[in-house]
Amino acid sequence: MSAVEASRWEPARLAAWIESRLTRVEDALGAWVGVDAPAELGDAMRYAVLDGGKRLRPLLVFAASEATGGDAGTALRAACAVELIHAYSLVHDDLPCMDNDVLRRGKPTVHVRFGEADALLAGDALQALAFELLTPDGDAIAPAVQAHLCRLLARAAGSQGMAGGQAIDLASVGVALDEERLREMHRMKTGALLQGSVEMGAACGRPPSAAALAALRDYGAAIGLAFQVVDDILDVVADSATLGKTAGKDAASDKPTYVSLLGLDGARAQARELLVRALEALDRSALADTGALRALAHMVVDRDR
Amino acid sequence: MSAVEASRWEPARLAAWIESRLTRVEDALGAWVGVDAPAELGDAMRYAVLDGGKRLRPLLVFAASEATGGDAGTALRAACAVELIHAYSLVHDDLPCMDNDVLRRGKPTVHVRFGEADALLAGDALQALAFELLTPDGDAIAPAVQAHLCRLLARAAGSQGMAGGQAIDLASVGVALDEERLREMHRMKTGALLQGSVEMGAACGRPPSAAALAALRDYGAAIGLAFQVVDDILDVVADSATLGKTAGKDAASDKPTYVSLLGLDGARAQARELLVRALEALDRSALADTGALRALAHMVVDRDR
Repeated sequence: MSAVEASRWEPARLAAWIESRLTRVEDALGAWVGVDAPAELGDAMRYAVLDGGKRLRPLLVFAASEATGGDAGTALRAACAVELIHAYSLVHDDLPCMDNDVLRRGKPTVHVRFGEADALLAGDALQALAFELLTPDGDAIAPAVQAHLCRLLARAAGSQGMAGGQAIDLASVGVALDEERLREMHRMKTGALLQGSVEMGAACGRPPSAAALAALRDYGAAIGLAFQVVDDILDVVADSATLGKTAGKDAASDKPTYVSLLGLDGARAQARELLVRALEALDRSALADTGALRALAHMVVDRDR
Repeated sequence: MSAVEASRWEPARLAAWIESRLTRVEDALGAWVGVDAPAELGDAMRYAVLDGGKRLRPLLVFAASEATGGDAGTALRAACAVELIHAYSLVHDDLPCMDNDVLRRGKPTVHVRFGEADALLAGDALQALAFELLTPDGDAIAPAVQAHLCRLLARAAGSQGMAGGQAIDLASVGVALDEERLREMHRMKTGALLQGSVEMGAACGRPPSAAALAALRDYGAAIGLAFQVVDDILDVVADSATLGKTAGKDAASDKPTYVSLLGLDGARAQARELLVRALEALDRSALADTGALRALAHMVVDRDR
């Protein structure tokens, strides 16, 4: 058994862990999203968010929160907030002026179902709702934690994070990016929110040591990049039915990918290397309870099996 | 001299007050918006925000902050944050799938200048930046104030505020709204962020009494509605050059307005009534220094002179 495999949770243990967290996330999203919104808008918001997706970001929030002894109620809000940012980005990304995608998670995209204007507004409202969830009335969540979570989420979502990465992506169609610039684009576009999920999880309780926090950031950065590398692999090897979205899209639109840059084998080797880096970062963190974080790292990389 | 005019600032005093606040807002926005963003995105963000607009919302933040003894540095961040939300809403509102406007403040709209995709992303990034501005590192702004400002802004911007109002507006083209439903739509679409500006200003320092806060909310609600009534009047009586945007747009698109509902004279009477209501709320607040709030209320209503 290799070092990478040594401490790995049994699949059944991970499945049970995921199921219990997902139940809470789905219940909370069902209760919080679009409920008091005007009819069409609320429907579009709920359609965009409910009953779909692997919820990787919420799971990372929970895993990091549990590794650092965070409060479960706070983690639930942080988990939902980060998922709302992810969901809004997909809605806007699918719009005709962006990727013009008609299929997402096997269903018509939001603008196909509700029209472009409501899709635009639903995305906008989901972003605002994310910050609303992080700042509830009362003192169940300490104000300093609320402010910290807002800070982390805003930075991960904004022009130096997700939105900035999407802008670089947009500007790079048909452009020969080298590996460094491709990595930078993905660090912002996908990595920032995944890393932000880990940092937000770690912000749900007593602050971890600076060393542990730095290690968690490294972990988040590694799996953030690994996620994208595997996404590029899947875009080539999987079919649309498995993906739940249009396969081969990136290659067809002449976007640079890790596969086009490193080849399929090279991309797979890169993904394994990032997994090792993520697991080593957890070792370095000296946190006691990193089992879920380890298992999620494996899950991210093994999606292409 | 009527009671409404009694306590009014001289025009020169208001002009000086506005100029000194605007200088700080413009400087801060110039330093904070789009500076470290990827090139095209940063340019689009700055184009959307800088050198344009009356900055009514920032002025309301300052005025309410000064009335309640708020911290000037905190008020500056809150003022810029609320302006970013306003600016992003204009960028998205102008998109072809929404109002399809090509002219804003006398310049080509963001999507005309930068393309739809970058306009979409610039709006998204501006919303995130608003929350970033409210949650700076360090302790210059107390965490509880940061969290409170995020809470107020998220609620004002989201599905039960601005975005929700826009969705109702969208669904009401060609529909005969009665005055109550029109009022509700505008309360959300325009009023929520104007009222939110006042509340955010009042959140920049020591919390005012519950009675003063309630009075400030009433003030914000009244001028929020007055603003829209006057907007509807201007849409009919002003030309595009004066407005800096396409005039007669609402009537042409068969949107319900206060003028179509109440007639021009009725709409003007309504605006005066709302002004009186705003000024009475300030009297009721028992706050000492409401001069700027009073002057801004007059300014909002007198835009159609």
